[in-house]
Amino acid sequence: MQIGIIGLGRMGANIARRLTRGGHDCVVFDRSADTVQKLAGEGMTGASSLEDMAGVLAGPRVFWVMLPAGDPTEETITRLAEIAQPGDVIIDGGNTFYKDDIRRAKELAGRQLHYVDVGTSGGVWGLERGYCMMIGGETETVRNLDPIFDCLAPGRGTIERTRGRSATDDRAERGYIHAGPAGSGHFVKMVHNGIEYGLMQAYAEGFDVLKTKNSTLLKEDERYDLNLTDIAEVWRRGSVISSWLLDLTAEALVSDQELEKFSGHVADSGEGRWTIHAAMEEAVPVNVLSAALYARYRSREEHSYADKLLSAMRFGFGGHVEIPQ
Amino acid sequence: MQIGIIGLGRMGANIARRLTRGGHDCVVFDRSADTVQKLAGEGMTGASSLEDMAGVLAGPRVFWVMLPAGDPTEETITRLAEIAQPGDVIIDGGNTFYKDDIRRAKELAGRQLHYVDVGTSGGVWGLERGYCMMIGGETETVRNLDPIFDCLAPGRGTIERTRGRSATDDRAERGYIHAGPAGSGHFVKMVHNGIEYGLMQAYAEGFDVLKTKNSTLLKEDERYDLNLTDIAEVWRRGSVISSWLLDLTAEALVSDQELEKFSGHVADSGEGRWTIHAAMEEAVPVNVLSAALYARYRSREEHSYADKLLSAMRFGFGGHVEIPQ
Amino acid sequence: MQIGIIGLGRMGANIARRLTRGGHDCVVFDRSADTVQKLAGEGMTGASSLEDMAGVLAGPRVFWVMLPAGDPTEETITRLAEIAQPGDVIIDGGNTFYKDDIRRAKELAGRQLHYVDVGTSGGVWGLERGYCMMIGGETETVRNLDPIFDCLAPGRGTIERTRGRSATDDRAERGYIHAGPAGSGHFVKMVHNGIEYGLMQAYAEGFDVLKTKNSTLLKEDERYDLNLTDIAEVWRRGSVISSWLLDLTAEALVSDQELEKFSGHVADSGEGRWTIHAAMEEAVPVNVLSAALYARYRSREEHSYADKLLSAMRFGFGGHVEIPQ
Amino acid sequence: MQIGIIGLGRMGANIARRLTRGGHDCVVFDRSADTVQKLAGEGMTGASSLEDMAGVLAGPRVFWVMLPAGDPTEETITRLAEIAQPGDVIIDGGNTFYKDDIRRAKELAGRQLHYVDVGTSGGVWGLERGYCMMIGGETETVRNLDPIFDCLAPGRGTIERTRGRSATDDRAERGYIHAGPAGSGHFVKMVHNGIEYGLMQAYAEGFDVLKTKNSTLLKEDERYDLNLTDIAEVWRRGSVISSWLLDLTAEALVSDQELEKFSGHVADSGEGRWTIHAAMEEAVPVNVLSAALYARYRSREEHSYADKLLSAMRFGFGGHVEIPQ
Repeated sequence: MQIGIIGLGRMGANIARRLTRGGHDCVVFDRSADTVQKLAGEGMTGASSLEDMAGVLAGPRVFWVMLPAGDPTEETITRLAEIAQPGDVIIDGGNTFYKDDIRRAKELAGRQLHYVDVGTSGGVWGLERGYCMMIGGETETVRNLDPIFDCLAPGRGTIERTRGRSATDDRAERGYIHAGPAGSGHFVKMVHNGIEYGLMQAYAEGFDVLKTKNSTLLKEDERYDLNLTDIAEVWRRGSVISSWLLDLTAEALVSDQELEKFSGHVADSGEGRWTIHAAMEEAVPVNVLSAALYARYRSREEHSYADKLLSAMRFGFGGHVEIPQ
Repeated sequence: MQIGIIGLGRMGANIARRLTRGGHDCVVFDRSADTVQKLAGEGMTGASSLEDMAGVLAGPRVFWVMLPAGDPTEETITRLAEIAQPGDVIIDGGNTFYKDDIRRAKELAGRQLHYVDVGTSGGVWGLERGYCMMIGGETETVRNLDPIFDCLAPGRGTIERTRGRSATDDRAERGYIHAGPAGSGHFVKMVHNGIEYGLMQAYAEGFDVLKTKNSTLLKEDERYDLNLTDIAEVWRRGSVISSWLLDLTAEALVSDQELEKFSGHVADSGEGRWTIHAAMEEAVPVNVLSAALYARYRSREEHSYADKLLSAMRFGFGGHVEIPQ
Repeated sequence: MQIGIIGLGRMGANIARRLTRGGHDCVVFDRSADTVQKLAGEGMTGASSLEDMAGVLAGPRVFWVMLPAGDPTEETITRLAEIAQPGDVIIDGGNTFYKDDIRRAKELAGRQLHYVDVGTSGGVWGLERGYCMMIGGETETVRNLDPIFDCLAPGRGTIERTRGRSATDDRAERGYIHAGPAGSGHFVKMVHNGIEYGLMQAYAEGFDVLKTKNSTLLKEDERYDLNLTDIAEVWRRGSVISSWLLDLTAEALVSDQELEKFSGHVADSGEGRWTIHAAMEEAVPVNVLSAALYARYRSREEHSYADKLLSAMRFGFGGHVEIPQ
Repeated sequence: MQIGIIGLGRMGANIARRLTRGGHDCVVFDRSADTVQKLAGEGMTGASSLEDMAGVLAGPRVFWVMLPAGDPTEETITRLAEIAQPGDVIIDGGNTFYKDDIRRAKELAGRQLHYVDVGTSGGVWGLERGYCMMIGGETETVRNLDPIFDCLAPGRGTIERTRGRSATDDRAERGYIHAGPAGSGHFVKMVHNGIEYGLMQAYAEGFDVLKTKNSTLLKEDERYDLNLTDIAEVWRRGSVISSWLLDLTAEALVSDQELEKFSGHVADSGEGRWTIHAAMEEAVPVNVLSAALYARYRSREEHSYADKLLSAMRFGFGGHVEIPQ
């Protein structure tokens, strides 16, 4: 298929590459002409503007927008809505808030444009491993894009089949799903990231308990000298907690068990927060997912006002003066 | 009554003072002879050793041990057990783990000594306001000590009576209870402190949300300029969240809304941890009490290993490099 | 002053009563004519409609809307905006989301109307004790309403003055504050409720640990027979955790330590959730406030899907079959 | 090697089978003679008592105890200590608290017996996949047992090698580690299980958010009709959160997305609690691991006393009567 790809950062560029390798015809655009130039040299067609891209693509056109969520994506889709012709498809492959998808799909439907939201997991590994995709949009529109999704997805590969599975729709097994109408793709991806935060924090806390057991602050007979690198490695092998995140942990620990190159400031993106929002709208208790998010907030503060207020109260009732330890 | 008081730190000295003012005859001992000397000047009888104290006191003797929990208390009670005569009473007024009380009471019963555990709340304010006491021990032993407890307790004071209350045992209304057998006094005090941590953290988080709403990191139209000093003050007046801890907060904020003299390192003592232990033994979910405890642990770390591991995983799957903000 | 009060539920009616007792001239309206009739019999002027009320009030009019947050309040304010004259004041005394206040204040300013948001704490006790109020709006508008706020507030009463306090603005000490521009009153009230949830949950968890220590499911030598009624009472007396919520707890336990008349389903309102939203916008970790909210969600579910999924996984890896206990 | 295996439940029997298939000579004992009989029919040597086993085994003997933690294991090891000869080895392959290992190792060393603690993960799948083992004990004793561990472990299999790994000790890559001295095997396994709880709860909460998004309690335009079976499946394929626990989730959902055969009561074992204990001893904040544990406690209660107390307070300040929803 022919497809226009807008935004050639790491994700967008690799998606374009994987599609090109799969035989698809990619027309690419980025605000950096150099980046466009570079990918043009890899067998794609460079476009100098959205209008230029629209002229190059044959109708009905397919535009895949792969930009940071928020203003960059919003502005681009607004402009595409003006450039596009009835029947064209606009895909948002970024990390958009799913309620924005619902709004946009309605607006674009008024212009006879089709909107598809694609939540994408796989990070820097997607080019080689393929992308896991969760897709929202009209059934027919999504079906028409099947060659694209099939190419980007990992495919069945060597992953063992789930016992008992006999679904007629085999897309999930090839690595993508049509989750439902507009927004549902990003909704599922949002929860995916919420879970991801929780999983990561569970490992992080556990390894912290292991690491601190080696601390010279403990009495000698309460201390071990645990090799965290080997522990992560052995857990990859037959344990209940083996996972891809553990694979990455094992790899990180191989190079430095102290993790000294990491500052300990941990960023978070919208999906983690939106998962909590969604849980609150549904009245679902999410203690683990929240705690995982808050640990990241806390990681970016040196001393919180909350902590100081605790000290102030302690001073008030007990005369305690907190001495830094 | 005549009573021996061992350990003349802030708590022990003030307890001795309140008892002396109440007409009781206090014999006092501390490892610092200067401290003993000082209190002897306030109308008490100084003792130069535990043996000396035992000689001065008329039988059946009452020893009130007011020392840091753990080794200092344990060692003193072990020595008292050897010095004391059948029928004597040993009171532990410190913050001992309640299972240690149970063990000790059994050991001392073998020597016909009576053991009483007293959990005491009131901090530096107790001398004037009186101490709230939770007492564990044999019924008769505790009853015999009533003049002591009655004197130390706040008494009814100006606190309004609880509607509907008509208990025949009015001790709770005068500020002390006999909670049950050995250990129960410290058990109740332990949970008291667990709750205290939770309450403090609830205020701390709420005031942090208020404080950060003033932050210049927020966009100008999302920011307020809230006066936290006045907010704490107004909440003391008719709001659902008025409390003594809020009174202390209001006082702390009067002198400095920024709380700059506090480092933000917050200590914790055994009771908070033991409350979690007890909850786990009982299978009671205590998310708030745990979170309050962990916030204190976190306050004492600059960057945790857990945080670094999160960054390491993020680097692994997304190539994210965490830049301190 | 003359004031129109719209919405005569428990809160609205009592506010009208307190103002009438304080010598203010209240014109009252409710969708229930019977309710209007009843209050008219208590010395207020009944109105048959918003238009009627507007006709009775002398300009510049003051409308106090005391309705459930959301649609009822929104619709009433929209209608008032049409009825009111430039210079009139519309007060929202309910539990509105503060961003709605900001929006409304802008809209009303376009019509030269003044908008004031008042967060009110005090519940059913406000009529006698007075209401604690947090107020957002233009400085002059709020100042003009001072007689109203002064009358509704508890006043200094018998509450001890905060040590060191010497503010020139004594409103906080009388029980109300002007927190800042539109929305700030409800913002502060929102955080107040967030804290309230946290405090309540801290007590709830602590008392659960005490209560379960009496459980016959524990081995006999690990069990106490704690009197929770007396424990709540004694903690009111000189302990660090004394508070109004503890007073209420003590009162509830007097009538039934088992609390059998309560189902255990606990409702939550918008403010608890919005506090979490605000914390996420500010990146402030609020583990306690969240856990308190989620405990309420969980209280309303019999068995959660999350729990079932845990069992399903346990069955998958260990062949564990969960038997209800 | 020759080895005695005591306790032929699912784990013990499968360990014996895997060793027998690997060419080792297993002498087996269980308090059920039928079970011993059954395994004797699979090529092992049945023993009628511990003494019988000791007589059959050639010295230095190796006893592998595979019994429930607590009394059964403790009693068996106590008896073995009396039966065994200097130089014999006692392995505890169960889920013992690591401090009990430390105590036992000391006691047995006094009799010139060697103690080895083995934490084992793999559940019902271990027979085929092999067991992931974390081992504590003296270096030489553990090395001498290498044929046993090598046989039980999964071996390298098809799991990709961790990038950059070049350790000289390849045991971790074959699925077992010598973690350190006595207790360290069970310590690492304990943290493993703590992490397991956290991971499971993260998935459980996320799937609950997905599931509830389908709920007819939501307004129609806020609802999706998500296929959780396909979502679990697609996440196995290239997503960041792929894991063995997710594989099991996918399998469970294939047979019934509603999970109706599960009651929702979720058990927990000692390791989850001990991980929290350890974290508290180390002052490491573990919000996620705790929340995961508490969710299991809560799953086993219909309505908690904590919930009722919240309702009682709400009734006290607001006259709210909680109606079951």
